[in-house]
Amino acid sequence: MTQSSLAQDTATGSPVRLQAVTAEGQPEVTPALEELYRGFEQELLVPLWTEIGDLMPAHPRSRAVPHLWRWERLRELAARAGDLVPVGRGGERRAIALANPSLGGRPFATPTLWAAIQYLMPGEDAPEHRHTQHAFRFVVEGEGVWTVVGRDPVAMRRGDFLPQAGWNWHAHHNATAEPMAWIDGLDIPFQYATETQFFEFGRDEIGDAERITPERSRAERLWGHPGLRPVSAGITGPGSPLLAYRWEHTDRALADQLALEAEGYGGTVEPGHAAVRFTDPATGADVLPTLRAEMHRIARGAETAPVRETGSSVYQVFDGSGTVTVGGTTWSVTRGDLFAVPSWQPLSVRSEAGSTDSDSGALDLFRFSDSPVFEALRLDRTHVEGNPR
Amino acid sequence: MTQSSLAQDTATGSPVRLQAVTAEGQPEVTPALEELYRGFEQELLVPLWTEIGDLMPAHPRSRAVPHLWRWERLRELAARAGDLVPVGRGGERRAIALANPSLGGRPFATPTLWAAIQYLMPGEDAPEHRHTQHAFRFVVEGEGVWTVVGRDPVAMRRGDFLPQAGWNWHAHHNATAEPMAWIDGLDIPFQYATETQFFEFGRDEIGDAERITPERSRAERLWGHPGLRPVSAGITGPGSPLLAYRWEHTDRALADQLALEAEGYGGTVEPGHAAVRFTDPATGADVLPTLRAEMHRIARGAETAPVRETGSSVYQVFDGSGTVTVGGTTWSVTRGDLFAVPSWQPLSVRSEAGSTDSDSGALDLFRFSDSPVFEALRLDRTHVEGNPR
Amino acid sequence: MTQSSLAQDTATGSPVRLQAVTAEGQPEVTPALEELYRGFEQELLVPLWTEIGDLMPAHPRSRAVPHLWRWERLRELAARAGDLVPVGRGGERRAIALANPSLGGRPFATPTLWAAIQYLMPGEDAPEHRHTQHAFRFVVEGEGVWTVVGRDPVAMRRGDFLPQAGWNWHAHHNATAEPMAWIDGLDIPFQYATETQFFEFGRDEIGDAERITPERSRAERLWGHPGLRPVSAGITGPGSPLLAYRWEHTDRALADQLALEAEGYGGTVEPGHAAVRFTDPATGADVLPTLRAEMHRIARGAETAPVRETGSSVYQVFDGSGTVTVGGTTWSVTRGDLFAVPSWQPLSVRSEAGSTDSDSGALDLFRFSDSPVFEALRLDRTHVEGNPR
Amino acid sequence: MTQSSLAQDTATGSPVRLQAVTAEGQPEVTPALEELYRGFEQELLVPLWTEIGDLMPAHPRSRAVPHLWRWERLRELAARAGDLVPVGRGGERRAIALANPSLGGRPFATPTLWAAIQYLMPGEDAPEHRHTQHAFRFVVEGEGVWTVVGRDPVAMRRGDFLPQAGWNWHAHHNATAEPMAWIDGLDIPFQYATETQFFEFGRDEIGDAERITPERSRAERLWGHPGLRPVSAGITGPGSPLLAYRWEHTDRALADQLALEAEGYGGTVEPGHAAVRFTDPATGADVLPTLRAEMHRIARGAETAPVRETGSSVYQVFDGSGTVTVGGTTWSVTRGDLFAVPSWQPLSVRSEAGSTDSDSGALDLFRFSDSPVFEALRLDRTHVEGNPR
Repeated sequence: MTQSSLAQDTATGSPVRLQAVTAEGQPEVTPALEELYRGFEQELLVPLWTEIGDLMPAHPRSRAVPHLWRWERLRELAARAGDLVPVGRGGERRAIALANPSLGGRPFATPTLWAAIQYLMPGEDAPEHRHTQHAFRFVVEGEGVWTVVGRDPVAMRRGDFLPQAGWNWHAHHNATAEPMAWIDGLDIPFQYATETQFFEFGRDEIGDAERITPERSRAERLWGHPGLRPVSAGITGPGSPLLAYRWEHTDRALADQLALEAEGYGGTVEPGHAAVRFTDPATGADVLPTLRAEMHRIARGAETAPVRETGSSVYQVFDGSGTVTVGGTTWSVTRGDLFAVPSWQPLSVRSEAGSTDSDSGALDLFRFSDSPVFEALRLDRTHVEGNPR
Repeated sequence: MTQSSLAQDTATGSPVRLQAVTAEGQPEVTPALEELYRGFEQELLVPLWTEIGDLMPAHPRSRAVPHLWRWERLRELAARAGDLVPVGRGGERRAIALANPSLGGRPFATPTLWAAIQYLMPGEDAPEHRHTQHAFRFVVEGEGVWTVVGRDPVAMRRGDFLPQAGWNWHAHHNATAEPMAWIDGLDIPFQYATETQFFEFGRDEIGDAERITPERSRAERLWGHPGLRPVSAGITGPGSPLLAYRWEHTDRALADQLALEAEGYGGTVEPGHAAVRFTDPATGADVLPTLRAEMHRIARGAETAPVRETGSSVYQVFDGSGTVTVGGTTWSVTRGDLFAVPSWQPLSVRSEAGSTDSDSGALDLFRFSDSPVFEALRLDRTHVEGNPR
Repeated sequence: MTQSSLAQDTATGSPVRLQAVTAEGQPEVTPALEELYRGFEQELLVPLWTEIGDLMPAHPRSRAVPHLWRWERLRELAARAGDLVPVGRGGERRAIALANPSLGGRPFATPTLWAAIQYLMPGEDAPEHRHTQHAFRFVVEGEGVWTVVGRDPVAMRRGDFLPQAGWNWHAHHNATAEPMAWIDGLDIPFQYATETQFFEFGRDEIGDAERITPERSRAERLWGHPGLRPVSAGITGPGSPLLAYRWEHTDRALADQLALEAEGYGGTVEPGHAAVRFTDPATGADVLPTLRAEMHRIARGAETAPVRETGSSVYQVFDGSGTVTVGGTTWSVTRGDLFAVPSWQPLSVRSEAGSTDSDSGALDLFRFSDSPVFEALRLDRTHVEGNPR
Repeated sequence: MTQSSLAQDTATGSPVRLQAVTAEGQPEVTPALEELYRGFEQELLVPLWTEIGDLMPAHPRSRAVPHLWRWERLRELAARAGDLVPVGRGGERRAIALANPSLGGRPFATPTLWAAIQYLMPGEDAPEHRHTQHAFRFVVEGEGVWTVVGRDPVAMRRGDFLPQAGWNWHAHHNATAEPMAWIDGLDIPFQYATETQFFEFGRDEIGDAERITPERSRAERLWGHPGLRPVSAGITGPGSPLLAYRWEHTDRALADQLALEAEGYGGTVEPGHAAVRFTDPATGADVLPTLRAEMHRIARGAETAPVRETGSSVYQVFDGSGTVTVGGTTWSVTRGDLFAVPSWQPLSVRSEAGSTDSDSGALDLFRFSDSPVFEALRLDRTHVEGNPR
């Protein structure tokens, strides 16, 4: 590979060999050089010239790989954990995390993102704690658990997105006679890599006053009105003061976008592809300082253009069926399935009508990513196939 | 008045003599000084020492005065203008502005704010134009007019707040058989004082496609979902992309705050006083770069603490009855009445149950002000009686 | 004038008739309409349709006019005031302000800017006070006065720019046997129009410890090193913590730009036109929240392209001679002369070699303006002749 | 360890056991549980409850350890590399990086920071390239190399700090008859962890026009004047447009702070401890989006209070001698020595007079860190011993 061909490839965004530096850049290994390298080792030194291809690639070359986890299997294992593993102080949560196959067995869906299924049995409580890691819950099925954030009980129901910014006290309790499963997303791997984590235990038991099960949390009553800010609120955040984004709003917003498109107006990302981002109503920014969360709807038969982005994402199928292609890998996906998209790997999605005629045929995908980190640091890049970067 | 007593007064915010500079600061007028002053005049010069008391007061001493305009009388005159004055290119709008009594007959409710009643007869159109002045409409009664902003028809109904940021094309048309009145708020006096205005005529007639009368505007379908941003949207503004804030949301948000207070939680500004601010969902900031807009609800029998603020406000009673005190002036107010609060004049409001038992007894007040100007420039100050500034 | 011709004119920025609204927009005056207008007057109302041409012009039509004040005459009158008018508490400063001829005799150089010559006799003190108005001093000639800001004595010498953000205590004292004159710039008219002023008297006499006359102020020792921030500093401002911008730096920066241009590189605003802006080292933003200050150098024989800007400026000739054209007015100017440029009036400057061969022939112009106000509110517009706006 | 003792420890910041979660939180391992764990493995899942102590510690528990590298030894090895290893396309730079002993042999001084000695022989060139990684050079001794950034040659001399924001083309050439060594700092490990890197080769040879060796770079001539911004500059960054921060300014700023302290004024960080931060003159923010750089001067005999910070630092002794304590490790350090301070490890420094009487006895320390990342994401925390966090 020559230098000029590399530059060309980078400019077009088409697939390139990822080595920035060829073997030609290396000095011939002589006894004298071997002795020098031993000197480096003794002094805890490493030369750039042998490492540059790995450290400074032409574009991101993720240690992670694209991978799919089937919801059906996750739920089975989580239910079995419900039988065998108690929830309590120490272990804190009955959460089971996705481990990307090429990240050394660590519970990291991607190098920066944590995604787990959490499971709570009837009547169970998960004890209160707080941590600097930013978190959210997303509910693909079921209901009956209330997350108590800062003593405010927040109902969890199918389709709801429930953010919970770092350093807020929180606990969960299942107020029903049925178990419930949902997914947790956090920036645990990012904070692990950057070593910024703080953690504190809270109360072992939440109070009786927090065991009420209101339809709307206090957070929603204060912050859940479109474009309206409580005048009493001072400076908020970091992270959204709104603790629940309900499915009825998300669904309506997506339907509105597709309807506007059908009427001849803008609003969708591309034809047949509606998407909303969950934002902090106090700032309009991403709902959490390190995590972006979005819901995408791909209309029946539509297909998205391949997109590469700096940073990684995890998706969960919320509804419908379809085909997902990440890099060279293609999967058929259905409700609840989760998949990881590593940095700069192109992603394309196609919606496919299910076997029954009754459904709308749309494919609804929940997505979360580490994009706010890179936008804050101005390290974000996006490339849509066919468009200049 | 001594220097130290002045400092004391300023700190407490209690009424003080407003002259920063006493007569003692003036030089004795001699023939030589008179000649010097004539020299100043010839050269278009003015000394500071004779003007400082007016120019640099201890705290804002507004040229405007508190004043009340009765809605009943405004509506009568507007209706009469509906009979006599056509709407069309040149005059542009059948709008009749409040003129503060001490601002020289100019149509300025306060030194920075324009407030007018606008009136449109059945079937009438107001022609399209655009200007840098930021504007909104607020509807205290009636319905039937659609504002067409950027070719997007926006219904106007009682209680709705309809912002329209500068330099957007807009027109109005009355699609019904009834006349309709509402108020317009703009930053005309501010832009007049600072000389930043641009204006362009648009089409004389809006197109047939814009004469549709949808329940929801396209802006609401894209931006009116709480905490949800269309992913397709790029950088917005200045000013809110959401063109309508509907009464049902505002009313519910205010009711929620008072209910939370009743349950023992925060959320209200002070006891019995709920308030929401209209914000730009893309930024969480004020809905317009130069104008703040809020709705306040004072529960039956509640009274607000006197507050002084840098900058001025105009209020309109949306519902209920009560007593308003601005500086030394007190009025009984009822639906539709408008009043101006000059800079640094203390305002206090009391809600009083009306003559009928059926109403809630709450006093709902719409407010707009120039606060964003001063916050952007860090010239804002607020003093609540009994609190340190 | 037709609607389309107006739009065209606005787009090109060429001179246009400034009436947005023609007489055709007015209703025919009938007895019934006259009665309605009387009703408006009684109720303190003013219709938009009779005022719109003044209030909403096609582009800014300033109440101010271009005007020139001769430094020689200002200095004479200031010296005479030195003889006749004492400086002390009450009058506060021996400052004599420029009064734009069309602003009703008020001491306003433009609708938003105050510019005055201040004069201090040998051994005199100006007493301490503080105010929300942002201020600076600029020295066109002489030296010997120290401004004491927050008890930090700051020397004033030819070419120095000395900002002093609002609400800082400050006094002046002349430590020499010569009188000294300089100019003060403030946002007094802006804060007068918007009614945001606060003022407090300080000590009548500064302490002995503040009568020292160091070469460099403490502010310069902390903040005057290029690109270096004291780690001990917390959040600063609003306004620059650096209290003096010395001529040696300004001069060198301007000379560097012209030298870079001569070497074939960028750096100048346009050929032969170097310019630097005084900025807050803690933020990189304008030195004061409401005032921009710059020094411009026009090389011998160079001429600047006509520029229109939203908002107004005051210029003082620091060195050299030249010709200034504002709108239709042209003046020959020399050291110390001051002139006002109203909003949206085109300004062009030409440098002309003086009568002696020894000088560089460059024209150095100090400028201050209200631009930060409009940038903060996104109301700024600039039009350079020949460029699209 | 109990929950309450942990909370207490976290509050005081004193050393604590770092396990957030005790063994008591683990379920008893039964055959059924073992089978479940095998199911997890098959499905690429990992439970939280076995990992939480590592992933969510009570406070940051760095994978890195404090470590010291001796400059004398580094320079010897770099000189030997100068003999043996050519510089050219592919290897790109003769840079030898510090490898923290507990980071698996990777060339990472800390989990986020790269620090290397770079060495260039007389007449050598390092070829042009660019990358998203932000970089700087700092010169502890010698001179003679020019860094060419965007075709602007920048001299490198003892004490100079030379930032170079991501995606700028750059090359180096040694214009003298002597070899030269300096240190490079980059965010390579951070971008490696977050997978955001792009890289492009530039020209193999810089042009003759770039082989000039000016005292000042063009960047300095445009941006190196205190508080002065070229009006011609548009939006800059990310990262500083000023490419050199010269020792004469840094030295003077530090001396000024200690002199102010001696005169009884503030300015130092703590008694005997002066410090300046290198900032972007266009924004006042950190010089690079992901890297903070500072110079600290500890007066003879002074000692700094132990400080813990989120994120890591690398220090190099620029001048003087002293004792450094990081966590439980203490070293005597002298000119050129480098050491790494992991996240949340307390650092304290003491200056000690050298063996000769001629030196000032001050200890000058260059520092760089990843703090801007955490401030941008609001993950920064600092704890100074004796102060509340």
